[in-house]
Amino acid sequence: MRRVTEDRSATLPDQNHPDPPAQEDLALEALVREIIGRVADKWTMLALETLEEHGPLRFTRLGELIGGVSQKMLTKTLRQMEADGLVVRTVFPVIPPRVEYALTDLGRSLGAAFCGVWNWAEQHRESIMAAREAFHAHSSPS
Amino acid sequence: MRRVTEDRSATLPDQNHPDPPAQEDLALEALVREIIGRVADKWTMLALETLEEHGPLRFTRLGELIGGVSQKMLTKTLRQMEADGLVVRTVFPVIPPRVEYALTDLGRSLGAAFCGVWNWAEQHRESIMAAREAFHAHSSPS
Repeated sequence: MRRVTEDRSATLPDQNHPDPPAQEDLALEALVREIIGRVADKWTMLALETLEEHGPLRFTRLGELIGGVSQKMLTKTLRQMEADGLVVRTVFPVIPPRVEYALTDLGRSLGAAFCGVWNWAEQHRESIMAAREAFHAHSSPS
Repeated sequence: MRRVTEDRSATLPDQNHPDPPAQEDLALEALVREIIGRVADKWTMLALETLEEHGPLRFTRLGELIGGVSQKMLTKTLRQMEADGLVVRTVFPVIPPRVEYALTDLGRSLGAAFCGVWNWAEQHRESIMAAREAFHAHSSPS
């Protein structure tokens, strides 16, 4: 994983700022961390994956396909994703109103960025299961 | 983002299983999703990044560097990371006991996998901020 500040200086090698403004770097890093705090989230990742695979979906169907998510949590997740420009919510003027959620290009790009984490989980699942067994055997009271 | 089942068939092109056992695929997918549910987490990502950058750290110092994390949440995060084999906890037999947390190779590999998400957040921060402004302007009552 890399530092935002390192990357900034790496992309600005010829500027006359051998010591880039620390204040600005800190603000940028805080913003990136805040964004990570929003998107590095189980339900966001699962909603991204489900919408990418199944296309635009109604709320109830999306919840069924994700599985195990409460209505309240899914509402909160989708509202944050909509605010951040990751999904669009379309209301069709029919009776009763039909509401569909779809990924934006920005949402799709985040899905692609998360790909590495899915691959990691699949590749290392056996190491993780072995670690869990060892941990619980070690920390059990017997 | 890709489906686990697609990847399995892609890596087993010559097996005599044109229809791989659905049961097994579902179990694998459930396991990978469970792992994602554990690691796709703000505090896990921030702990990974902080330990990668600053090396082995004591609990209090790690919490200070992450920032904004409660003692309870950091304890829970580190315990899960330890159980999953992402960090090792070393107790030094001094008085008072000194406890240090360090990344394992598995933890470092997850850090590398998350790299794409950090890059995404940095690259798209302006689009995200613009989306938020538009969303809040649109959804405000005035």
